[in-house]
Amino acid sequence: MFIRNAWYVAAWADEVGETPLPRRICNEPVVLFRDVAGNAAGLLDMCCHRGAPLHLGQVTERGLACGYHGLTFDRSGRCVHIPGQDRIPERARVRAFPVVEQDALLWIWMGDPAKADPATIVSYPWHNDTARWPHKHTMYSIKSAAMLMVDNLMDLTHLGYVHTSTIGGNPLIHVEAKMDTVRTAFGLKFSRWMLNSVPPPTYMRAVGFQGRIDRVQMFEFIAPGAILQFSGADEAGAYGDGKIEDSKLRFRLFHGLTPETDTTCFYFWSTANGFRPNEAAATESLFNEIAAAFNEDRTVVEAQQARLTELGEAALVDIATDAARLHMRRTVDRLIAEEATGLAAQ
Amino acid sequence: MFIRNAWYVAAWADEVGETPLPRRICNEPVVLFRDVAGNAAGLLDMCCHRGAPLHLGQVTERGLACGYHGLTFDRSGRCVHIPGQDRIPERARVRAFPVVEQDALLWIWMGDPAKADPATIVSYPWHNDTARWPHKHTMYSIKSAAMLMVDNLMDLTHLGYVHTSTIGGNPLIHVEAKMDTVRTAFGLKFSRWMLNSVPPPTYMRAVGFQGRIDRVQMFEFIAPGAILQFSGADEAGAYGDGKIEDSKLRFRLFHGLTPETDTTCFYFWSTANGFRPNEAAATESLFNEIAAAFNEDRTVVEAQQARLTELGEAALVDIATDAARLHMRRTVDRLIAEEATGLAAQ
Amino acid sequence: MFIRNAWYVAAWADEVGETPLPRRICNEPVVLFRDVAGNAAGLLDMCCHRGAPLHLGQVTERGLACGYHGLTFDRSGRCVHIPGQDRIPERARVRAFPVVEQDALLWIWMGDPAKADPATIVSYPWHNDTARWPHKHTMYSIKSAAMLMVDNLMDLTHLGYVHTSTIGGNPLIHVEAKMDTVRTAFGLKFSRWMLNSVPPPTYMRAVGFQGRIDRVQMFEFIAPGAILQFSGADEAGAYGDGKIEDSKLRFRLFHGLTPETDTTCFYFWSTANGFRPNEAAATESLFNEIAAAFNEDRTVVEAQQARLTELGEAALVDIATDAARLHMRRTVDRLIAEEATGLAAQ
Repeated sequence: MFIRNAWYVAAWADEVGETPLPRRICNEPVVLFRDVAGNAAGLLDMCCHRGAPLHLGQVTERGLACGYHGLTFDRSGRCVHIPGQDRIPERARVRAFPVVEQDALLWIWMGDPAKADPATIVSYPWHNDTARWPHKHTMYSIKSAAMLMVDNLMDLTHLGYVHTSTIGGNPLIHVEAKMDTVRTAFGLKFSRWMLNSVPPPTYMRAVGFQGRIDRVQMFEFIAPGAILQFSGADEAGAYGDGKIEDSKLRFRLFHGLTPETDTTCFYFWSTANGFRPNEAAATESLFNEIAAAFNEDRTVVEAQQARLTELGEAALVDIATDAARLHMRRTVDRLIAEEATGLAAQ
Repeated sequence: MFIRNAWYVAAWADEVGETPLPRRICNEPVVLFRDVAGNAAGLLDMCCHRGAPLHLGQVTERGLACGYHGLTFDRSGRCVHIPGQDRIPERARVRAFPVVEQDALLWIWMGDPAKADPATIVSYPWHNDTARWPHKHTMYSIKSAAMLMVDNLMDLTHLGYVHTSTIGGNPLIHVEAKMDTVRTAFGLKFSRWMLNSVPPPTYMRAVGFQGRIDRVQMFEFIAPGAILQFSGADEAGAYGDGKIEDSKLRFRLFHGLTPETDTTCFYFWSTANGFRPNEAAATESLFNEIAAAFNEDRTVVEAQQARLTELGEAALVDIATDAARLHMRRTVDRLIAEEATGLAAQ
Repeated sequence: MFIRNAWYVAAWADEVGETPLPRRICNEPVVLFRDVAGNAAGLLDMCCHRGAPLHLGQVTERGLACGYHGLTFDRSGRCVHIPGQDRIPERARVRAFPVVEQDALLWIWMGDPAKADPATIVSYPWHNDTARWPHKHTMYSIKSAAMLMVDNLMDLTHLGYVHTSTIGGNPLIHVEAKMDTVRTAFGLKFSRWMLNSVPPPTYMRAVGFQGRIDRVQMFEFIAPGAILQFSGADEAGAYGDGKIEDSKLRFRLFHGLTPETDTTCFYFWSTANGFRPNEAAATESLFNEIAAAFNEDRTVVEAQQARLTELGEAALVDIATDAARLHMRRTVDRLIAEEATGLAAQ
């Protein structure tokens, strides 16, 4: 059960070049490609003639040509060429999905195309600000539902158990963080303040903090699968004035979770270095630290998925630290229900 | 849904020696073996005692002995020995499938044994004519329904898209080929003439054609899974008199498609060199060129199967070049229907 | 369909140390661990908070802490710590399975805990008698139902077909063995006498027998999955007086079969060297010979399972040598039926 009338990240823009890219999204086989003018498109990855996947074909002047018998389709899915005959039947077309390129990402709309409004795509200008926020990005294939990865980011107390040796550190710091939460139309924002705390290993490696630090994490979840994160840290006491923009350590993370199937997803993520933007090594190092931590998440969440697939969630017990996660889930459930009953989700 | 009252290729005769060979055919686990006299046989690959596969056993003077507790079966599936007891119960037998060795192939009948007439087996004498048609053969396991591989051979326009760098060449040549079709009791024959055309890479490598060529492909499909092919080529103009027997380049291909399961099959094929029969290198080279081409087919047809398994064929659109394929399908559908309603298929 | 009110081998005691061990038993995911005092325990391997497997966690002073958000459970499955809150809800618990450590094994009870009586655990004191019966042990994961492995041990005529080159030797010896059988409350005992017989390869390698031997195998099956074996051999004629305790070659095998799923199981087995107890090389060599033989069993039984999964057992035919196996099966079926109708199985 997915929200369908919504924009999902389909790919990093630089993943799709001359060679068509197959990717299953919300359980549909999609082929992503660029026409000769460089415009990205997404079609059902199945030729309407004999069913061969279109990603085995190639882009020609006319569009995407099937690699089996040469039928060719434009970005709208219309068949524009059939070898051996002039007349092209009206039925000769494949389903097209709206695709928009924005902020280094290709966004795709899996629902009713008539409702696809590019103005509602999540904005993430930092991907374009290579001078002040140089970033590095990748995609992880995760064997869990997208929602379990969103869950993971809504309860940060896991940092003290899953990421002890990387971005976590002492469990108590995360359990005792002061948390402010604001609900929004399509999700929520929350900030977690850990003043006068011991820095985690990653932070010490990044900036060389000697003593205690003030630390903040700011998250925004926007349904169905975007999470925007700012993390800052400075010498203890520095946050007394509420200013965090100039934190000695500051970085941004983009998290885009896209369902592949009911129990697998794509995790598109980037790390943007705002604290030493002129040092490529700092950008690289930040990415590597986070990559190690996200592999720790992958291990536990994939194992969690296997248990939930087998035994279900009915017997599970919510605890106090689930508050943000539960609000996120209620938002998503509401959007799914609205979509099912025909109310506009956007 | 398979035609069952029909002869399928079970194996190349030289695949079955002293060691029993397990092979799933039409979704039945079969063990192929030769008794001590060298006569080939096919039994259900499951001992009637405790269900162990008989292919783990060994051939003795008495027949095929199970490798678990030693029960032994003759070629008719009758149990002829039970260690530890003299009386052999009537129920102690395994199902036997008629098997006939002919033209370097083992043919098997998966339906009603009473209807198995060896006279109806497809004849392919070129496998025995090692002087004028030396051949080389193999078997490919394909992850597609046998019918999709037959489809592939009924629409040769795919040569221009799938086999550009091998036996195909320019797509237009295949789309514009002049085609003669004749319907037969169990299939169809068709010839494809490409006069005054540019030779494909394989042909240039084989014979060293310098300029344009006359080219012909002659196919016969005989249900359920045999396709006999003659391919010829000569200098442009040579076919003006209708004679193709002495073509400068001439070779024969045997294609035998046998269902393993609903979505997998065995592709038995051979290449016979009729143009330089005294040169082993030419026989070898022809085989290697075709092997490369058939691996290209495998890639696209297996990908096609995956899509059809998921999304079905209902929305597909037939085009002009599907004519021979559609006649083949109607023949097979008619034979399945006749078998279902009890009419003799042979 | 498993007997549930019974003790199964869950692990060798030395398999479970500081790191929790996941193991599926009777189709339930179990985590085995030891608390800081060294006491073994078994819990459902799924945290009651978000479903993460507990085997990814770690043992602390308080118990087993989940590796995701830190909830901690004692050996009874009670939650004793929730990070971030003081009140622990009554529902916060995971299912616990009774576990007992005895004779180098961890035994687990998968049924009603109120019926779990440690006094009914199979006794195997030889695992503790390192002076006179030094042993070596291991566990094989087998892709067959546990019952098929028990079957295998109830019809020893398979030695002449499966183990020709190891512990078997000439098939006729096993078919003609004189067999005494005694029925017991939870199974049966049988002895197989092979007097004045040719020694199998393993025996010749172990003791260097030159001529014919007297040979005996004594088996006891105790439902649901324990088989205790004594094997002896001596110069031909030595068993005339009925004494076997001082056999020149004598060893004991423990076989514990535990269902993992309906079609996979764990095979816990040990070999105890009673003939050269002071020679570590003899203990090692005995183990290696048996390990080779049990891999031969694995091959045939896994192949048997595949056939039975596909085609069922309905058409199979029992033979004379199935007598002990059939009694074993009737015992197990009776215990399953008694359990289903609420009669005490113990």
